[in-house]
Amino acid sequence: MAEQKFDVLTIGNAIVDVLAHAEEDFLVREGLVKGAMRLIDGAEADRLFGRMGAAQLISGGCAGNTAAGIASFGGRTAFIGKVAGDELGRFFRHDMQALGIHFPTAPLDDGTPTARSMILITPDGERTMNTHLAACQELSPADIDRSTVEGAAITYLEGYLWDPPKAKEAFRIAADIAHSAGRKVAITLSDSFCVDRFRDEFLDLMRSGALDIVFANRHEVLALYQTSDFETAVASLEKDIALAVVTMSEEGSLAASGGRRVHIPAAKVDRVVDLTGAGDLYAAGFLFGLARGYPHETCGRLGSLAAAEVIAHIGARPQDSLSQRAGQAGLAA
Amino acid sequence: MAEQKFDVLTIGNAIVDVLAHAEEDFLVREGLVKGAMRLIDGAEADRLFGRMGAAQLISGGCAGNTAAGIASFGGRTAFIGKVAGDELGRFFRHDMQALGIHFPTAPLDDGTPTARSMILITPDGERTMNTHLAACQELSPADIDRSTVEGAAITYLEGYLWDPPKAKEAFRIAADIAHSAGRKVAITLSDSFCVDRFRDEFLDLMRSGALDIVFANRHEVLALYQTSDFETAVASLEKDIALAVVTMSEEGSLAASGGRRVHIPAAKVDRVVDLTGAGDLYAAGFLFGLARGYPHETCGRLGSLAAAEVIAHIGARPQDSLSQRAGQAGLAA
Repeated sequence: MAEQKFDVLTIGNAIVDVLAHAEEDFLVREGLVKGAMRLIDGAEADRLFGRMGAAQLISGGCAGNTAAGIASFGGRTAFIGKVAGDELGRFFRHDMQALGIHFPTAPLDDGTPTARSMILITPDGERTMNTHLAACQELSPADIDRSTVEGAAITYLEGYLWDPPKAKEAFRIAADIAHSAGRKVAITLSDSFCVDRFRDEFLDLMRSGALDIVFANRHEVLALYQTSDFETAVASLEKDIALAVVTMSEEGSLAASGGRRVHIPAAKVDRVVDLTGAGDLYAAGFLFGLARGYPHETCGRLGSLAAAEVIAHIGARPQDSLSQRAGQAGLAA
Repeated sequence: MAEQKFDVLTIGNAIVDVLAHAEEDFLVREGLVKGAMRLIDGAEADRLFGRMGAAQLISGGCAGNTAAGIASFGGRTAFIGKVAGDELGRFFRHDMQALGIHFPTAPLDDGTPTARSMILITPDGERTMNTHLAACQELSPADIDRSTVEGAAITYLEGYLWDPPKAKEAFRIAADIAHSAGRKVAITLSDSFCVDRFRDEFLDLMRSGALDIVFANRHEVLALYQTSDFETAVASLEKDIALAVVTMSEEGSLAASGGRRVHIPAAKVDRVVDLTGAGDLYAAGFLFGLARGYPHETCGRLGSLAAAEVIAHIGARPQDSLSQRAGQAGLAA
C-alpha cells in the first residue's frame, strides 16, 4: 500500500461564496426555493449579483469547506477542484494553502472565471444558494492526481460533482484509484435536488461497491428512496452502504454500520447566524475522526462540534480552531 | 443654496479589506506595529498575502465604511473614491450600490488594480492594516463631482487621503466647493502615523477654516499636539476647530464645541471580535445624527451604537440594521 500522506482527500467544486443577507420576500420575488442550491449561468449570476445586498467573499464549495474543517482539526488534508487563474481563483488557492491543504490542481486558463455561489442568508440563518459553476465544470480526469488519491486514507467526493459531465468521470476514476490502493471512498449526497437529478446513478454507485460511506441529511435520504418515512429511508440506506451517516439538524445525527446505529446529539448553538457549511463541517469532523480511528460516536461528536462552530458566524469555513475546541470538549483530537 | 440631496458625502480610499486572523507572534516576525496602518507596494502585498491565513474579502476603506454605516441608519449617502474596473472594483461598487449609496466616481482603467488592505486580526480583536493603495492613488480633482458635494449637508474626508498627492488636491477642492455651497466639512485624522506624516498640514487646514469638524481618537489627538497629556491635547483641539469629536475606546467619547463638552459612554459589547471599522462606524453614527440636527449627545450615542455593532463581528461594515438598533435603543432615527 502507498504511504499514507493524508487523512482525507476531498474532491469537489472549487467555489468562492458571495454571501449576503436577504429578507424572505426577496426570495419570493426572485422565485427562489429557500434552503436549496440552484445552478445558474453567467448572465443570471450578474443579474442576481446586481440585485442582492452588500456581500462578503469567503472561499467555499462543499468539499473545500470540508477540507478546511479537517485541516482545522489538525488533519492532513488534500483537495482537488478547478479554479481559474483569476483574482478569485488566487484567493481560493491562497486560502487552501494557508490552511496547509495540499492542492495539486492546476488552474484553468481559458478565460472562464472561477466559480461563485451567491448565497442569500435569510433572518432565520437559512441559506439559499445560486451557483455559477464556470471553471468548476472543467474539472476532468486529468486533474485526478494519482499519488494524492493513493496517499489518502479516505477520498471524499461531493454529489454536486455529478452536474459537470467531465467532473463525474473524474469522480469515478478517483474512486477506482482509491479502492485499488486499499483506501475508503465517501460521498455526500449534497442536496435533495441533486439526488433527484442523479438518484439512479447514486444508488448504482452505492450498490456496486464504488462507495463505502455516504453522508446525507434528512431531505436527501428521503429523496434518495422517494419516501416520506424517515425510518424506511434510513433502513434502506443501511442496506445499501457499509457506513451511513445521516444528519438531522437540531435533532443530531446518526451513524449506521453493520446493523448497529449510533445516535449523536447536536451541539448547542446560542444563535444560528448562517447555516452555510453546516453539513460540510459535520462531515469534516466525522471524517477526521474516522481517519484517526475513533469510534463512530466520537466521530459524530466531532462533526457536531464543527457544525456548531460554523453556523454561529457568516461563511462556511471555521473561524476558530476546531482542534482547540475538540480538546476543550474532551474529544481526543 | 443647492438642494440638499445627501445627509453626508464621504470621500476616501476605496479599498477591499482582506481580513484574516493572526497570532501575536506573526506580527512580531513580520515586524508589524499592532493597531497601525502601513502603506505597502504590490510586491509586499503579494508577499504578505502568501504568508497570512485564510481570509475574507469585505469592502472597506474608512470613508466607505462610514458611508455604509450612515446608509444603514437610513441616511442619504454619497461616496467618492477610486476603484479599478477589475473584479474587486466591481465587488466594491456593488456593495455601495446595494446600500443605496450614490457613487459617481468612474473606475480607473489603466491596469492598476483596486486597492486592498491586508488586515491581521489578533486574538484580542485588534487589527493591523497593510494597505496597497493602487487605484486609490489616482483619485484626482476631476473625480470631485461638484453637484454631489454641493448637495451634501456634510462632506467628510479621511486623513489617509493626504497620502496620495492627487487625492490631497481633490480633498482641498471638495472642501472649497462644500464651503462655497454653505455646507460643513469634516475630517477624520485616520491614524497617529498619518498625523505624524501630515501634522502641519492638518493643523493648517483646521486653523485656516477649511474644516469645521474633526474626528480623532486618543492616539491621534496626542500625536497632533505632540503631547502625552490628553487634557492638554483636547484643550488645544477645542481651540482649533468648531466641533471636536474624540473617541476613547471603552471610555467612550467626547464632543467639544463652543467651550462646552459632552461626554458619551461607550456601548456595551459582549465580545470584541474585530476592531476594524470601530472609528469609521462611530463617525457614521455621529455624522448621521449631526446631519439630522440631533444634539451632540445623541449623535455620540448613535456613534457608540454603530461602533458596538461592527466590533462584534469580522469586517468593518455593519451586518445588522443600525436604523433598527437605534430605534430599539430609543434613539430617534
